[in-house]
Amino acid sequence: MQPTTILTLKQIETYLQTVDLIPLIEKGFVDYSNGLAVVPPVGELLFEQPAGEAHIKYGYIKEQAYYAVKIASGFPANTELGLKTSQGVVLLFSQETGVLSCVLLDEGLLTDVRTAIASMITLKHLAPKKVKRVGIVGTGVMAKLQLAFLHQVTDCKDIMVWGRTPENVTAFQSHFSDSPFNITIADSLAFLASECNVIITTTSAKDPLLYFEYIQKGTHITALGSDTAEKIELDPNILQHADVVVVDSKPQSQSRGEVFQARKYECLQEDKLLELGELIAKPSIGRQNDTQVTIADLTGVAVQDIMIATAVFEHHLK
Amino acid sequence: MQPTTILTLKQIETYLQTVDLIPLIEKGFVDYSNGLAVVPPVGELLFEQPAGEAHIKYGYIKEQAYYAVKIASGFPANTELGLKTSQGVVLLFSQETGVLSCVLLDEGLLTDVRTAIASMITLKHLAPKKVKRVGIVGTGVMAKLQLAFLHQVTDCKDIMVWGRTPENVTAFQSHFSDSPFNITIADSLAFLASECNVIITTTSAKDPLLYFEYIQKGTHITALGSDTAEKIELDPNILQHADVVVVDSKPQSQSRGEVFQARKYECLQEDKLLELGELIAKPSIGRQNDTQVTIADLTGVAVQDIMIATAVFEHHLK
Repeated sequence: MQPTTILTLKQIETYLQTVDLIPLIEKGFVDYSNGLAVVPPVGELLFEQPAGEAHIKYGYIKEQAYYAVKIASGFPANTELGLKTSQGVVLLFSQETGVLSCVLLDEGLLTDVRTAIASMITLKHLAPKKVKRVGIVGTGVMAKLQLAFLHQVTDCKDIMVWGRTPENVTAFQSHFSDSPFNITIADSLAFLASECNVIITTTSAKDPLLYFEYIQKGTHITALGSDTAEKIELDPNILQHADVVVVDSKPQSQSRGEVFQARKYECLQEDKLLELGELIAKPSIGRQNDTQVTIADLTGVAVQDIMIATAVFEHHLK
Repeated sequence: MQPTTILTLKQIETYLQTVDLIPLIEKGFVDYSNGLAVVPPVGELLFEQPAGEAHIKYGYIKEQAYYAVKIASGFPANTELGLKTSQGVVLLFSQETGVLSCVLLDEGLLTDVRTAIASMITLKHLAPKKVKRVGIVGTGVMAKLQLAFLHQVTDCKDIMVWGRTPENVTAFQSHFSDSPFNITIADSLAFLASECNVIITTTSAKDPLLYFEYIQKGTHITALGSDTAEKIELDPNILQHADVVVVDSKPQSQSRGEVFQARKYECLQEDKLLELGELIAKPSIGRQNDTQVTIADLTGVAVQDIMIATAVFEHHLK
């Protein structure tokens, strides 16, 4: 029996730099929408003292080598301890024997990266032809990671950022002081929405941040933050009036994310709901022109974890 | 941040020899029945080619240091490849920060051991005073493991074993040729039940093996094999006529195990159902005399994994 491979965070960081992630994760979404993936509902553990949550995602794509189990947690008070709020690990097991093939000690990195890549995939397929400026709502790890991959889907270098405190937005701006990006600060979300025709929301807000009245024609919004039944970043009216609404997983949108919220307020016509894998397989069903408003609501699907972890492990085996 | 500890199978085997497991896992069951444990429903993945199943159990006991995630799988065709059918891993994460503290590369051993220990706990609390002979149904890993711990709960050295093939039972018998046990072979389950007043069933049968007519007064039966909605080892009539029926988890008994099966055939009076943690906390509610028939139905609860994995890791840290 092959011994289990243990990959450290450093190794994972190195390998990620050489793997072409967008086509890889696109394939995962297409397989998922084609029914080739077995992805049971997300497992969840909630903690009270200190507050925290852990999500357990698991599944497999038929005819692939491995099944994956991913544990990713968020403990907000970690910042005070000098630790990253998100932590985690990904495991790959043989689909033939159940043998544990690889432990990826990623401390949540693979989740962050595959989420940012999914965001890029939504921009690739839904952003208007001419991206004027990209608005980033939030200033944390996920907000920063958008800019690491943005050049793969748009040439736009004009970024506007909004955060809850002046310290956060200044820190975000100076983090990118040596980058090719021109980063300005929005003093309100209404202003950000008036200046940007692509907006990415990355917060763990539990009340809407963006309102329907703010949104201009032709805007595309990708909402990454809400992945539970409680979190919400978009006023449900935005989804009601949007022309196209895309989710990464239709089943998951029954119980979490912006689409779940919009349904709760009866603000969603089901016929305009598309699954990301359907859109990738047939891009013509997405945005029809540069005046439509499009929304992508991502809650994260195990196929992303399977694809990214398998790619990293196979790169190691080469 | 502390680096993640990786424990190999060898280390785990060594540490297990010095940890006193019965009181430890008893405490886990009592905490569970007292509502101190957070244990969501078991996650499950089924595979078709080759056939296999993986169970994901996770949870935590309040005020302890770690939360645990355990993946355990069974791939029957592994035997042909010279691999153990059961495989797996246990992970311990800090309840305070989510940081991955320990990966226990146990290849399913901790699951096997904690299951055998739970079986010993049921014998300790439910076996008749005078154990005449212990009947073991099945000849696999779990069957053998019973005898490794049996001396901790009874002095009885007379064992009778039943298996599906003569090869299996002979192999079982010769496995223990140097042991203090006197092992005889039963040519039928009816004969085994007539000779033994303690019976442990360890198979993955999908049709009942033991029938009500076989069972003598005063017998205790622990059923370990059925942990899904499909598996069954005991004729539901046995549960209908038993005086005491104990499950490790009342919620899990709604969807898997012998009690689930008996309910399906309307063969169970709910008022005689006890939870193992209740019985351990108050032994007087169990067997009342040496003529009662008692049943324990174990489907496996994450508190067992939490307790055994934490004990092994803390032994390593000493």
